[in-house]
Amino acid sequence: MNPTETADVPGTILVDDIGTLITNDPALGRGPLGEIPHAALVLEEGRVAWAGPRAQAPAADARVDAAGRCVVPGFVDSHSHIVFAGDRSREFAARMSGTPYTAGGIRTTVAATRQASDADLLATARNLTREARAQGTTTLEVKSGYGLTVEDEVRVLSIAGRVTDEVTFMGAHLVPPEYDGDPEAYIDLVTGPMVQACAPLARWVDVFCERGAFDEQASRRILAAGVEHGLLPRVHGNQLGEGPGVQLAVEVGAASVDHCTYLSDGDVDALAQAARRPEPTVATLLPGVDFSTRQPYPDARRLVDAGATVALASDCNPGSCFTSSLAFCIAIAVRDMGLTPDEAVWAATAGGARALRRDDVGHLAPGARADLTLLEAPNHLYLAYRPGVPQVAAVWKDGELVTGQL
Amino acid sequence: MNPTETADVPGTILVDDIGTLITNDPALGRGPLGEIPHAALVLEEGRVAWAGPRAQAPAADARVDAAGRCVVPGFVDSHSHIVFAGDRSREFAARMSGTPYTAGGIRTTVAATRQASDADLLATARNLTREARAQGTTTLEVKSGYGLTVEDEVRVLSIAGRVTDEVTFMGAHLVPPEYDGDPEAYIDLVTGPMVQACAPLARWVDVFCERGAFDEQASRRILAAGVEHGLLPRVHGNQLGEGPGVQLAVEVGAASVDHCTYLSDGDVDALAQAARRPEPTVATLLPGVDFSTRQPYPDARRLVDAGATVALASDCNPGSCFTSSLAFCIAIAVRDMGLTPDEAVWAATAGGARALRRDDVGHLAPGARADLTLLEAPNHLYLAYRPGVPQVAAVWKDGELVTGQL
Ligand SMILES: [Zn+2]
Ligand SMILES: [Zn+2]
Repeated sequence: MNPTETADVPGTILVDDIGTLITNDPALGRGPLGEIPHAALVLEEGRVAWAGPRAQAPAADARVDAAGRCVVPGFVDSHSHIVFAGDRSREFAARMSGTPYTAGGIRTTVAATRQASDADLLATARNLTREARAQGTTTLEVKSGYGLTVEDEVRVLSIAGRVTDEVTFMGAHLVPPEYDGDPEAYIDLVTGPMVQACAPLARWVDVFCERGAFDEQASRRILAAGVEHGLLPRVHGNQLGEGPGVQLAVEVGAASVDHCTYLSDGDVDALAQAARRPEPTVATLLPGVDFSTRQPYPDARRLVDAGATVALASDCNPGSCFTSSLAFCIAIAVRDMGLTPDEAVWAATAGGARALRRDDVGHLAPGARADLTLLEAPNHLYLAYRPGVPQVAAVWKDGELVTGQL
Repeated sequence: MNPTETADVPGTILVDDIGTLITNDPALGRGPLGEIPHAALVLEEGRVAWAGPRAQAPAADARVDAAGRCVVPGFVDSHSHIVFAGDRSREFAARMSGTPYTAGGIRTTVAATRQASDADLLATARNLTREARAQGTTTLEVKSGYGLTVEDEVRVLSIAGRVTDEVTFMGAHLVPPEYDGDPEAYIDLVTGPMVQACAPLARWVDVFCERGAFDEQASRRILAAGVEHGLLPRVHGNQLGEGPGVQLAVEVGAASVDHCTYLSDGDVDALAQAARRPEPTVATLLPGVDFSTRQPYPDARRLVDAGATVALASDCNPGSCFTSSLAFCIAIAVRDMGLTPDEAVWAATAGGARALRRDDVGHLAPGARADLTLLEAPNHLYLAYRPGVPQVAAVWKDGELVTGQL
């Protein structure tokens, strides 16, 4: 083959000398993570073309040396709110110091977001997307919910669509102050003109089903309106106490119910049964939220043992949790939620993919998107073993190196 | 001044447009952190020449633009064990998964370290020092304790001395297997030929004063032998249960007693009284250890309220805690130990400096070493507010840029 021919043919890249390759495909390697020692990967046209033991790797046009380090699927962070304006670090500090703070929580962010320019909102969303990617996140869901007018929700969703394909309409994040006396009127807006304007910009509809936000009946209406406009449902539920969120999510066939901090036995049963469906309802845990609000941690062990499908996500947002680090979520899930390091890594990759009903990400079997992270570590256990330490050496998205140098 | 003169004169660097400057000098700014908004710093010959409000900054030869971001003193990590060989990630995973693991804990590391080449040990120590520095640690104490023969302790200390000035002799880390039947003989070795050979290579002597390691009497002998050879004492104590470590540390005037996970009222009183001495005994908390061993967290609030001086350190080591991230320790100290974000930042900088009896680091008043970190954040609260997220934009040590690009 001469150089001219090489230039015509899309190149193949061999990622060679991988100390530990996590494929998340049990058919390819050991255990549920499909772990292959001394492995190699071939990438072609943005996809995984081959994965297996190094000694059997086919030839390729270019070679990258992993030098014995670990490759994992890119993290799939199925829950974030990164289109916003304003700074709430002092509110956080006051909460953690037990000192009074009179600012308005989410409403602070809504006010600041409404006043912010598109350019500023986009810059923040881009910075946080880049930051997440540099930490190994290659798929990131982004929700609206700090606009809460038809115009501002459209604006926020448009900006979200510029940083990700996984966009969620969440006009039902809370009732904005101008509807304080008449929440029903706001629900009418969300289920009427707002969802109509927003649905073309989103894939998902979400609702904060919680005491103080939207009750079961309102949540059902909001999800139904989204579904009617072609959106797929997901739910925020059971964050601040037991409630109807989980059961509602399972009932409507939501892809995921997120938080799950407080679960009854019935909730766990429902999630276990939902996991057996062809399209399961995933229990998405958000360790950073429980961390940054000093809530108790949910018992992920109980969920896994019951048979539920568990995902880990960041919930990156300026109020309840401003981390974008899935590695941090993994470490907390292992320390405080009862997941093994293997289960936690699975939940942040394959689990997140299931929560977004994606079969092209979250694993590295042939055909998957070439979204992968090279760790500065010999195996994936280091993600929990070395909490807080940046361990991402390189990240590929769609086969392109987007972080790191090789 | 002509260019020739400029080249002769050591240059001054203005770090300008600092959004929040933490000096740790109450005389220079607000509160115990000496916080200055809209600040600037002038560095000269590796030291801080000036710190204050931006509007009053003197002229300088060069200018660095902090662009509204926060500058904090470099972290002073007063406790680590980074000269070692071997991998214990599977032991960690087994411990966190509740599955049996028969390997020998610290003894595994001792065996691997004894067999490792100097070059390999130095490479590991250098990598971890660089990694810590990239996370904002500009002063790092390093202990021996994985050699446990005269020859291997000398070897480890020599290597430690190539990565730091703060070297601690800790032959009394545990009794090595070859002395299983006769721990007294090992104590004789440590307090005799070993300390004699090691003292010239170290500044500090440390002992693991804990049930299963060295009892009070042995610990006292070991510290006394170190002091006799010109070393300053520090103590590992009260990690696994209440015990004599704290009282012994205060009694011998140790610079620090580290762990302090289990404290009696008497221990807290002793630490509070010791804090009033001209040379206090600092209570050094190691959040990463409690995190990675699922120990309960010590009550830092109780210590601070009693008047004790509290430091935060990593204890970076391959067994009980393999983090090198002081930012992670700050986040845990705030979430789980009752420190305010301000107190935690102080403990990881000024607190660490006191634990090492250093007045040239841990603060940024004029005359201090120019050891500082530029955060990718508008203020220091972000260290706790954004757990797990790498937020270090640049690090200067002795006035030289050692991490980041500007
Ligand atoms: Zn959320
Ligand atoms: Zn230690």
